[in-house]
Amino acid sequence: MELGPPGGAGPAEPGPRLRGLRGDDRAASAAWLSEASAGRRAPSVAAVLPAGGSGERMGVPTPKQFCPVLERPLISYTLQALERVCWIKDIVVAVTGENMEVMKGIVQRYQHKRISLVEAGVTRHRSIFNGLKALAEDQPNSKLCRPEVVIIHDAVRPFVEEDVLLKVAIAAKEHGAAGAIRPLVSTVISPSADGCLDHSLERTSHRASEMPQAFLFDVIYEAYQQCSDYDLEFGTECLQLALKYCHTKAKLVEGSPDLWKVTYKRDLYAAESIIKERISQQICILMDAKEDEEHVGRCLEEMLKKELNHVKVTSGALCHAGRDLQQIILEQCYNFVCVNVMTSDFEETRKLLNALEESNLSILYPVVVISVHFLDYKLVPFGQKMEHLMQIKEFAKEVKKRNILLCGLLIYYPQYFHRMGPLERTSPISGVTKTKPWRAPRVKRRSSVAFPLLFNAAFPATTALEGI
Amino acid sequence: MELGPPGGAGPAEPGPRLRGLRGDDRAASAAWLSEASAGRRAPSVAAVLPAGGSGERMGVPTPKQFCPVLERPLISYTLQALERVCWIKDIVVAVTGENMEVMKGIVQRYQHKRISLVEAGVTRHRSIFNGLKALAEDQPNSKLCRPEVVIIHDAVRPFVEEDVLLKVAIAAKEHGAAGAIRPLVSTVISPSADGCLDHSLERTSHRASEMPQAFLFDVIYEAYQQCSDYDLEFGTECLQLALKYCHTKAKLVEGSPDLWKVTYKRDLYAAESIIKERISQQICILMDAKEDEEHVGRCLEEMLKKELNHVKVTSGALCHAGRDLQQIILEQCYNFVCVNVMTSDFEETRKLLNALEESNLSILYPVVVISVHFLDYKLVPFGQKMEHLMQIKEFAKEVKKRNILLCGLLIYYPQYFHRMGPLERTSPISGVTKTKPWRAPRVKRRSSVAFPLLFNAAFPATTALEGI
Repeated sequence: MELGPPGGAGPAEPGPRLRGLRGDDRAASAAWLSEASAGRRAPSVAAVLPAGGSGERMGVPTPKQFCPVLERPLISYTLQALERVCWIKDIVVAVTGENMEVMKGIVQRYQHKRISLVEAGVTRHRSIFNGLKALAEDQPNSKLCRPEVVIIHDAVRPFVEEDVLLKVAIAAKEHGAAGAIRPLVSTVISPSADGCLDHSLERTSHRASEMPQAFLFDVIYEAYQQCSDYDLEFGTECLQLALKYCHTKAKLVEGSPDLWKVTYKRDLYAAESIIKERISQQICILMDAKEDEEHVGRCLEEMLKKELNHVKVTSGALCHAGRDLQQIILEQCYNFVCVNVMTSDFEETRKLLNALEESNLSILYPVVVISVHFLDYKLVPFGQKMEHLMQIKEFAKEVKKRNILLCGLLIYYPQYFHRMGPLERTSPISGVTKTKPWRAPRVKRRSSVAFPLLFNAAFPATTALEGI
Repeated sequence: MELGPPGGAGPAEPGPRLRGLRGDDRAASAAWLSEASAGRRAPSVAAVLPAGGSGERMGVPTPKQFCPVLERPLISYTLQALERVCWIKDIVVAVTGENMEVMKGIVQRYQHKRISLVEAGVTRHRSIFNGLKALAEDQPNSKLCRPEVVIIHDAVRPFVEEDVLLKVAIAAKEHGAAGAIRPLVSTVISPSADGCLDHSLERTSHRASEMPQAFLFDVIYEAYQQCSDYDLEFGTECLQLALKYCHTKAKLVEGSPDLWKVTYKRDLYAAESIIKERISQQICILMDAKEDEEHVGRCLEEMLKKELNHVKVTSGALCHAGRDLQQIILEQCYNFVCVNVMTSDFEETRKLLNALEESNLSILYPVVVISVHFLDYKLVPFGQKMEHLMQIKEFAKEVKKRNILLCGLLIYYPQYFHRMGPLERTSPISGVTKTKPWRAPRVKRRSSVAFPLLFNAAFPATTALEGI
């Protein structure tokens, strides 16, 4: 099988180092990665994403790749999964003419990089073919480079990991074609013409063919050029085209369950829950008091740390934590509790909001900020504090536009804990992390702090939580 | 094919009325249903549910059929789906010895009826065989009746509808065997020994074999008695056994997407979302004021009615609605907003809670009750009202044990709306229905009521919401 020319601006073809590592995927991957990161010797790789489907199985008018998941279209998650893989040089997305503007808007809004849009065909195979044509450099005005390896993926498989992309790309480089597979969940049967069982297939000797798949560009492009109209209309399997027209037997690569295709409405639910779980893995607690100061706010911090044992909790004094905060944001923390102990206004919360806005963190996922304020039961008239805190509603409206969901929480407590009995347990931010409810522990009595939290009052920034 | 004897206590075999309706499923279903409901002439039907699986694909230690969905084990939803079908006389569940006590506990706690437990075998086929043996009446001390038709279903397909159960049962009565099928989501391939593609199957000429399946009891029992140890160890398809050992070609019945098998963790997420969506379809607003009284509470009612346009909203004065409430509970409404306008305490909320507890509504699904209270900004000192309302925390703890999630909501408002500007929008119960966020409309100014809602304070019954 002849190798195509390396892409014009892409790195050159890898030498025997990669070829010689058959049977040792890990070493091959490491080599590929180090070559890719060094920008030399790795083959040039592009991806084609057919996204022309109508999503009729979903039972909703919006094609499934454009269905919102946490208010962002599904395809944007898939693009994000591909573009974070640095060795994929170009991502060609095939969309129907009627969705072209929508797609352009998505690319712009979520700041996707390395994306080229082409017009989809009426079938999946035709869409893929259009994507390949755009990469073949035989189109006039094409700015794309002909890659050595092309990955084909589905717009509706948003959870693809770099690991499996790498595996299929390496296997394609070696075998000419490769595809991810999964065990069958159901037995497959063949019906007879009268709607009865003809025979059933042995489940263990068959696999579900999933995505991604990868090919030497010349193999799959030749296959598409040679294949019949019947193939283009009714075929579903790219690996089969490579086999039929180029005699290339695809290497099959075991994929993870995450590769599943969002097909039905329930899959959208599942995708949303998976994403929520991922963005709930870390929470950052910021406090405007010094480490050694004792305050009821410190108890809240302790409780949160104890309770959130399934997530990574970072905490620190915000005023001293300018640089720490930048680091936390860089680590993609999407949940913040900002405890305003010393100040009577939102100064600390405002600082945090500014930092978040500057970071662009909330472009891809919603960021949740709980601004906590304390009110001494005996000392401050409730109405007075409340009127002051009402400003948060304005902040919430403002930052909501930037996908930051701000919620205010007023903790109203007596200086002395003369009401300990039934009030020991409270759950001020129940439901905020969403995927796992927050269970407050039984609070230890500490004589040196004014405790317990007598009650909590979510003041009207709750509009900010509407979108979660 | 010989028919077995009718079940001892079950209804007799249906006559030609059912047999003669080939090709007219709807009429056949109607006939079957009317026969079943009249308790005569319909064939006796039992169900076998193999539930001995270890759930290793889920990646969690609990077998998937026992994984909690809204705190109730998945298998309980499946049992509920089967037992609400009145013409299924017995449901035989095969569970492993080590899970027998757990299963007994589930049957008791969720008050499942018509359930018999048998010991599971080490494979799915052996578990089904054990279930069939228990129904065959050749076991000593068996209290079960040998059915004419047996349905086999999976413990991890909780959303099976009566419709498809009926279709497979009717088809089994006519053809000897029948099973639900679905189109393939992925192409199926056959790998060669070296892990490469040997060939791919044409997707359109194959189907996924799903559950439920149904058989004439004698057909499937004979098939299991005759089949080899190899079949029992490695087989996956009951339809295949009927074909191989009884030459019975199963009728294939197109099933709905809801039949899918909960296999991976994402499927649990999907199941939970589907159930939440189902129990969020109806909300009942109860108010202790008369219909013609004007109060800020009436505005809340109006807002809720306008806003909750995707759910069925029922409302009424609780004090006049004793009978209505019974009806609403019977219709399986799981969401209540109880607006306490006239009383300063929880009298109305308490009435509702009593009615709910008596109804047993919350055995299967959590019931959410929002107890709304109003406080005039100028007239009542906040602390005083709050202290009084703190009692709700005790109620919440108490009813939580019975799966009723009580949340208190205090709406604190000024008698005159001199603060209209930034406060027009509020969302007091955001997140309560959970599946769709509640978006408050822009409230119309009404001069005759004290508006707007100045703020809302979720007082500490929030612990009650932890379990949602």
